[in-house]
Amino acid sequence: MNNKLLCLAMFALLPSCIMAQKKQFTLNDLLPGGTTYYKNTAPDTKHIAWWGDNCIMLDVDRCYVMDKETGAEVKPLFTLDYVNDILKKANKKRVSSLLYCSFPYDDKPYALLRRSDGVSYIVCFQGDTKVVWSSVTDPAKENDDWNSESLNLAYTKEHNLYIQDGGGEVFQITTDGCDDIHYGESVHRDEFGIFKGTFWSPKGNLLAFYRMDQSMVSSYPQVNVTPKGTSSRCAQLVPDKYPMAGETSHKVTVGVYDMTTKKTIYLDAGDPTDRYFTNIAWGPDEKTIYMIELNRDQTDGELVEYDAKTGKKIRTVFTEHDDKYFEPCAPIQFLPWDSSKFIYLSRRDGYNHIYLYNTNGKMVKQLTKGEWEVFDVVGFNTEDNTIIYTSNETSPVQRNVYVLNMKGKHNVLGNTTGWHSPKLNNTGKYLIDNYSSPLFPRHIDICNTSTMWSSNVFSANDKWAEFNVPKIQLGTIKAADGKTDLYYRLILPPDFDPNKKYPAVVYVYGGPHAHVVDATNHYGARGWDIYMAQKGYVMFSLDNRGSEHRGKEFEQATFRNLGVEEMKDQLKGVEFLKSLAYVDSTRLGVHGWSFGGYMTTSLMTTYPDVFKCGVAGGPVIDWKYYEVMYGERYMDTPQTNPEGYKNTSLLNKAGNLKGRLLVIYGGNDPTCVPQHTLSFMRACIDANTYPDLFTYPGDGHNMFGHDRVHLHEVITRYFEDHLK
Amino acid sequence: MNNKLLCLAMFALLPSCIMAQKKQFTLNDLLPGGTTYYKNTAPDTKHIAWWGDNCIMLDVDRCYVMDKETGAEVKPLFTLDYVNDILKKANKKRVSSLLYCSFPYDDKPYALLRRSDGVSYIVCFQGDTKVVWSSVTDPAKENDDWNSESLNLAYTKEHNLYIQDGGGEVFQITTDGCDDIHYGESVHRDEFGIFKGTFWSPKGNLLAFYRMDQSMVSSYPQVNVTPKGTSSRCAQLVPDKYPMAGETSHKVTVGVYDMTTKKTIYLDAGDPTDRYFTNIAWGPDEKTIYMIELNRDQTDGELVEYDAKTGKKIRTVFTEHDDKYFEPCAPIQFLPWDSSKFIYLSRRDGYNHIYLYNTNGKMVKQLTKGEWEVFDVVGFNTEDNTIIYTSNETSPVQRNVYVLNMKGKHNVLGNTTGWHSPKLNNTGKYLIDNYSSPLFPRHIDICNTSTMWSSNVFSANDKWAEFNVPKIQLGTIKAADGKTDLYYRLILPPDFDPNKKYPAVVYVYGGPHAHVVDATNHYGARGWDIYMAQKGYVMFSLDNRGSEHRGKEFEQATFRNLGVEEMKDQLKGVEFLKSLAYVDSTRLGVHGWSFGGYMTTSLMTTYPDVFKCGVAGGPVIDWKYYEVMYGERYMDTPQTNPEGYKNTSLLNKAGNLKGRLLVIYGGNDPTCVPQHTLSFMRACIDANTYPDLFTYPGDGHNMFGHDRVHLHEVITRYFEDHLK
Repeated sequence: MNNKLLCLAMFALLPSCIMAQKKQFTLNDLLPGGTTYYKNTAPDTKHIAWWGDNCIMLDVDRCYVMDKETGAEVKPLFTLDYVNDILKKANKKRVSSLLYCSFPYDDKPYALLRRSDGVSYIVCFQGDTKVVWSSVTDPAKENDDWNSESLNLAYTKEHNLYIQDGGGEVFQITTDGCDDIHYGESVHRDEFGIFKGTFWSPKGNLLAFYRMDQSMVSSYPQVNVTPKGTSSRCAQLVPDKYPMAGETSHKVTVGVYDMTTKKTIYLDAGDPTDRYFTNIAWGPDEKTIYMIELNRDQTDGELVEYDAKTGKKIRTVFTEHDDKYFEPCAPIQFLPWDSSKFIYLSRRDGYNHIYLYNTNGKMVKQLTKGEWEVFDVVGFNTEDNTIIYTSNETSPVQRNVYVLNMKGKHNVLGNTTGWHSPKLNNTGKYLIDNYSSPLFPRHIDICNTSTMWSSNVFSANDKWAEFNVPKIQLGTIKAADGKTDLYYRLILPPDFDPNKKYPAVVYVYGGPHAHVVDATNHYGARGWDIYMAQKGYVMFSLDNRGSEHRGKEFEQATFRNLGVEEMKDQLKGVEFLKSLAYVDSTRLGVHGWSFGGYMTTSLMTTYPDVFKCGVAGGPVIDWKYYEVMYGERYMDTPQTNPEGYKNTSLLNKAGNLKGRLLVIYGGNDPTCVPQHTLSFMRACIDANTYPDLFTYPGDGHNMFGHDRVHLHEVITRYFEDHLK
Repeated sequence: MNNKLLCLAMFALLPSCIMAQKKQFTLNDLLPGGTTYYKNTAPDTKHIAWWGDNCIMLDVDRCYVMDKETGAEVKPLFTLDYVNDILKKANKKRVSSLLYCSFPYDDKPYALLRRSDGVSYIVCFQGDTKVVWSSVTDPAKENDDWNSESLNLAYTKEHNLYIQDGGGEVFQITTDGCDDIHYGESVHRDEFGIFKGTFWSPKGNLLAFYRMDQSMVSSYPQVNVTPKGTSSRCAQLVPDKYPMAGETSHKVTVGVYDMTTKKTIYLDAGDPTDRYFTNIAWGPDEKTIYMIELNRDQTDGELVEYDAKTGKKIRTVFTEHDDKYFEPCAPIQFLPWDSSKFIYLSRRDGYNHIYLYNTNGKMVKQLTKGEWEVFDVVGFNTEDNTIIYTSNETSPVQRNVYVLNMKGKHNVLGNTTGWHSPKLNNTGKYLIDNYSSPLFPRHIDICNTSTMWSSNVFSANDKWAEFNVPKIQLGTIKAADGKTDLYYRLILPPDFDPNKKYPAVVYVYGGPHAHVVDATNHYGARGWDIYMAQKGYVMFSLDNRGSEHRGKEFEQATFRNLGVEEMKDQLKGVEFLKSLAYVDSTRLGVHGWSFGGYMTTSLMTTYPDVFKCGVAGGPVIDWKYYEVMYGERYMDTPQTNPEGYKNTSLLNKAGNLKGRLLVIYGGNDPTCVPQHTLSFMRACIDANTYPDLFTYPGDGHNMFGHDRVHLHEVITRYFEDHLK
């Protein structure tokens, strides 16, 4: 086994420094939210915006046109004081920074400025300088959705939908919004790629929006133990609608508000009970609207076209089916140069790829193909009629940018290593490529998607060079199926001595839609991993089957039995760790959060002799307490998969606990509700086992800022107490 | 200091066994709820009932008349089968034990039998054997209150009051009972000696009852995380009315139901807002009813006499005032031989004593006096016209039985050591005296309150003789005031070696209405203390100023600053511990529950360098989260005593924590609501300190049975992890 592992191809050794004079990391250095994080370890960045083909470099108090080849300043554009003078003359409040300013119109000297209180302005900064537009100042305004063509702004307030039209007049579109009924907000608990609830037609003449009725859904009784401004100081109930797997779910419908007629129609999609309406997209002519309609079992979906004026169904464009589940996450996108065709992302051949369709539902061509996955379509080069997308074709742990023509030919753009986050300009000809790789923290290149030319305009200093950095390695081992390559990251203490014996901690996530090992800086090592390595722990992470970006079979191996195959793979990782002479097999620990908390608790109770100590955060304990959308996709329902729910319930395994296990939960976690952790405590007590517990009252599923640093001190102390 | 301490008078050394072959205690042996507690360590007892002057020895399946001198069987009375045959003939369900059977009528062969489901019967067991009476079988019936004269049974169901009359007919007395409005239940959160809500007149013709309206009180959002039989498996809200200090409290009124007229009148006591109605007592002729009415500040009370037929106030019999607080806990009791006089317990001279009053309000005589306290009036010897009471006159840590004549002369009855629980017969001539002392676990004597004769009828075996018992000592030290004697208990490990250094743990309660050191078996040592001593810890407990049975000044030293003087006294205990050569001053721990949890957390955060490790259970953290009745008595309100609340709030001291502190709370604690512990966690997180946490989901203020054993394993492990 060991020899095989050592032969694996991808194995890199990062440079490390063992010079004694180097600095030691603190948790405040290493964690987002730490007081010295941005100063000491986070890579510096640059804020760059597109204005047509111009690259605008943004700073807090000024911005300038940048040379796309050198990054040098070509000419100043304006200063913060300059635009604040324009605002002041119009009796508008000042903005405090230009960092998040943008230029929505290629042909106009208009800057969109944002205040931290949610107010926005468009300022004409050349010629007849003035405030062209400003948003309402209502502090209760949320979910802003602005259409640049019409200047219409949709927003919500106390769960009702409002529109400020381009002239500044405000219309209240709905009136019965309340805790039970939400308008214009994200629905289906942000699954299926949904992250918002309003969708402007291309020219902003019509607004599609979600309506969600959750009056029939159970409320989880969240409790605020430090209420402020209430009539009593007594803890306060904060009910939160939470549909649990197999129970009654909410009902979603889609309305369309017409700015001309001032009327709302609803798409005639039939009874919304136990259905998901996702991936809303407008036809380019604003006459039709598309969405993907999915059954509750998530096995069958159809792309349906509706008449946007009447709400009548025009046709089912196509259907898609998967025996296990099918999860559409990206709306269709019409070709800018051919409104009769659109592209669609599907995993139907086993990997996420781009398909070209006619609007009549005929598939024209599969544009990408291979044992790798398209991450997302970034946009289109409308001069060349090419598609810009990202994928991990180069390596399963990378994310690179590709340019694809309509014949299905594609080429990688710019730097071929690392992990890239591209930002196209309006024509799609230019691209700001912000990326990191295992060896450097951040580069920003400007790329031309036509000529495939690229040039570096910014490289962040490696702040870690001042520190005594642990050794970080990437490698692969075979999964428990004996054939699949799994990627791991191994971190060795800075003063590593192969003749010593080190305790080792596995950091695990393990669930779908995520990974923990990649080709970002330090192979994605987390700040806490580094901190622990510095304290003398070997740190290990492995992306097991079930995790993202490795194709459908890789993910669906876990179907109806979440955790089972994942744990088998993690045990392969443990086997590998134990094969390392410098790892003390009697001192193995495991830590994870959310799905990783589930994995941690699962591992501690399913294989009680492997890990001496674990810390599980915000864990799922029993999928019957998890939500309908995510839960039923992978587990079906407790009614249709009773064996799966029983086998994977940690309530049934509580009595197996032998090692030390600390379970931590956010006191008001709306995702993995406190019932998970608390019912596990009850099960352990009943079964005479002895977990430890901590909570962050008032926090949700994750801890941020100060609390995040405190949390990792607690986690570290637990391993220091019980593993070292 | 040390020399002085060693000179103190009361210092006893219990016999201990260090022979290696002796058994080791387990927690299951030592704790109530432990699987082997009754078998291995709890003293055996006998169930004895009075039937006139006959002593009836009760066993599960038979009972017999016992010789009062020897305890020997004089003659069988009946068997379980015998009474079950009588029940069967009357088509009644069988009873499973005679242990809790009683004989309400001195002159009739009637036995009152109880079933575990709440159903009771009166069976005539001699002559014309038959079922004389049986209670309703409604499983929702609660709060049974039975009058032996009339055979009327009052009970509550879903917060409404019902009466089953002697003939078996059931009347629903109230109809608007609900979560907000309770009838016939205990009120004022069981303070002021209140433990029930119905009060039969002597002959059972009238029933006084409480009505409590708490619609104006805040609800604490308790959460059930393991709901059963609900429509959703989602955690369930269980709201619980909880009036917090300084906030709006409930309103109580007192009704009187007349069995003859079938009508209810309410006592005309005026607006019940911010008032306490306590110590309800009937006049012997059933014509008048008395109660003590107390202002919310608990400084001023009056005994008021009402006309039981009309509810009109007849007179204020007398008033009582205390600048700090005045806490009436015992209803007046009329002399059986003189209905114009009653006795009343008051601490007005500094100690709790018996006063004789005329019904016109004139105090006739203070019957007891001295620097000791009357615990309770047990009853009257109606042949001799004497009063039987208990007090700690013999020693502050004892509880003995006394017989008092109307001239104020009293004598101790029976054994003069230990801690006695007497049970009088109806005439008051005989008494079953169940008691223990530091040297023996249980004796039962029969005493004659006229002749002062007594005879032992049962002595429990000392089951501990089989175990390797720690050394247990009693002693006193001076309080922080330099003058008051405080009692402590010191426990040394069984194999104690004075040349070794031991870690020491202080077990503390410290609050009013309680003590932890007394003259019961092993000086009141708790099972967990023994367990810890066996593991090699020196265990120490001290009853500080503020605790019970030591007089008013002793208790009120803590007024408006709960915890402050108490901690100073505990630190005197720590000084004493440190003076012991075999105590390792660097390894001191502290543990307490409820007020003791408050003391533990207070000590850890006020004197952070004293204790290395603490475990606080169900703690008060801030008195502003505690209830109105108890809280305001000792602390006044947050509005009237802002400094006191601020100084004693542990939220303000969270940042001082240095040692290891585990806080444990019952997940549904209705007494010290979870808000205490959780707001403390939040304060510690914000202040960058690191307590540990555990909870028992579904449990209340204390853990019982299996959970209690689990809890003490958790507590023990924490000290083993961090103190040993």
